[in-house]
Amino acid sequence: MVGQSNMAGRGYLADVKQIYDEKIKMLVNGRWQTMIEPINFDRPTSGIGLAASFAGAWRLKNDQEEIGLIPCADGGTSLDDWAVGGALFDNAVFQAKLALRTSKLTGIMWHQGENDSFAGLSAVYYDKLSIIVDAFRAELNAPDIPFIMGGLGDFLSTGRYGKYFTEYKQVNYALQKFAETKPNAYFVTATGLTANADELHFDAISLRRFGIRYFESFLQKKNVLAPVTGEDELVDMVHQRPLTKNEQAALLKIDFSLGKISSDDLDEKVSQLNE
Amino acid sequence: MVGQSNMAGRGYLADVKQIYDEKIKMLVNGRWQTMIEPINFDRPTSGIGLAASFAGAWRLKNDQEEIGLIPCADGGTSLDDWAVGGALFDNAVFQAKLALRTSKLTGIMWHQGENDSFAGLSAVYYDKLSIIVDAFRAELNAPDIPFIMGGLGDFLSTGRYGKYFTEYKQVNYALQKFAETKPNAYFVTATGLTANADELHFDAISLRRFGIRYFESFLQKKNVLAPVTGEDELVDMVHQRPLTKNEQAALLKIDFSLGKISSDDLDEKVSQLNE
Repeated sequence: MVGQSNMAGRGYLADVKQIYDEKIKMLVNGRWQTMIEPINFDRPTSGIGLAASFAGAWRLKNDQEEIGLIPCADGGTSLDDWAVGGALFDNAVFQAKLALRTSKLTGIMWHQGENDSFAGLSAVYYDKLSIIVDAFRAELNAPDIPFIMGGLGDFLSTGRYGKYFTEYKQVNYALQKFAETKPNAYFVTATGLTANADELHFDAISLRRFGIRYFESFLQKKNVLAPVTGEDELVDMVHQRPLTKNEQAALLKIDFSLGKISSDDLDEKVSQLNE
Repeated sequence: MVGQSNMAGRGYLADVKQIYDEKIKMLVNGRWQTMIEPINFDRPTSGIGLAASFAGAWRLKNDQEEIGLIPCADGGTSLDDWAVGGALFDNAVFQAKLALRTSKLTGIMWHQGENDSFAGLSAVYYDKLSIIVDAFRAELNAPDIPFIMGGLGDFLSTGRYGKYFTEYKQVNYALQKFAETKPNAYFVTATGLTANADELHFDAISLRRFGIRYFESFLQKKNVLAPVTGEDELVDMVHQRPLTKNEQAALLKIDFSLGKISSDDLDEKVSQLNE
């Protein structure tokens, strides 16, 4: 997970059903933990992102296997912030290498461009991104894994920050051109996706849909230029997966640790699970 | 910030006043951001930790300077999990090195030991910790900076998890012995500090006090074997620091991004700040 805030995820946690699955992991301090949102806690505003439903959709097709997410996106960052040898780039490579100690790297998910949508920056987007992606592939010895890029939302030109993003369409063209001209690079449209009140960040349900589109691209190794047929039903399927007893017990223990339920309640509810 | 859950912090966010200060930073994806709790988001139960009041107390003595926190603690981890060359150790060293690109390393804060408080593990605590601390100092070229260790809480033997921590007093002895025999290593008592309902994690106000004790140790370069005189007043001073206009505006923007206030409210409140 690399890019800026819309990869990190700013969907409101209360707006969608939680995705919790012991076979979906996230990298924390270099080790795998069970995923729980927010996954990519780069700012206090972090929330729902697109990676959780991506992983949930992957799990629908991989019933016995585990998938892990490596959160490295950082809000408000430009391609210059992601320059090779900078802290963001080096941290992302290092985190991926920590994950590689126990796992296999199968893809890179990118969403970025808002901070290159002004002042002529879109004209150099393609070239700057090329250098970064080539370097990721070289550092991680991953020439062939899919590099999946989502488009910027059409809401960007409206709202209180709209005046800043005069070149967001040009960035989308650059991303599409990248997908068309580079091997193993794919573009995923944001068509029809909507935003929070800030008209800047995708809302939670849109990010659930976006994750389905990213997965479709990952699965088919192709661009996704229109909404996926049945994407809402796929989101529902991911949301409706029944929790195992272990997962229910783990969530109860979290509630206890957060002071939401008492020790007695915890005991009672866990024993009910085991009946 | 290295160690396990009580360094990461599990105090309830609602229990104490927020500490927010533009001159207190936290490392996120290798770069400095304004600190906001939870700082060390290793688990969904992360909350208040001891580092925020440590930094707040430091700021009371350093009015014009910035301090940064590097969160690397991870819940439930043993000294074996922290072994040199493991993911936790390597990640902590790497994060510190990213911080060193722009900053100076002035201390290491450690709180760990619950997961070495059984099965005879306390007997080898001193030796295992020695290897880890020596390696941190060597990797970071930091032979002289303070290594500050807090004691384990006396509540550990009670509560639902109490039966597991049969050797927590021996771990405290090992930590004290470490402070007495190693250069630039200091022990900070947890005497009088209390826990969440789990009798496992320090509560929020105790962590505020603990941070004051860690700072006293850091400042005086000595062990802190009893509560600091006036520590509650120092916590109050940290809590009562007036927010600058910039800080108030930043918090309002966070509330807007989280959907807690409308765009119009944000405009109105920010313009009130500037009147």
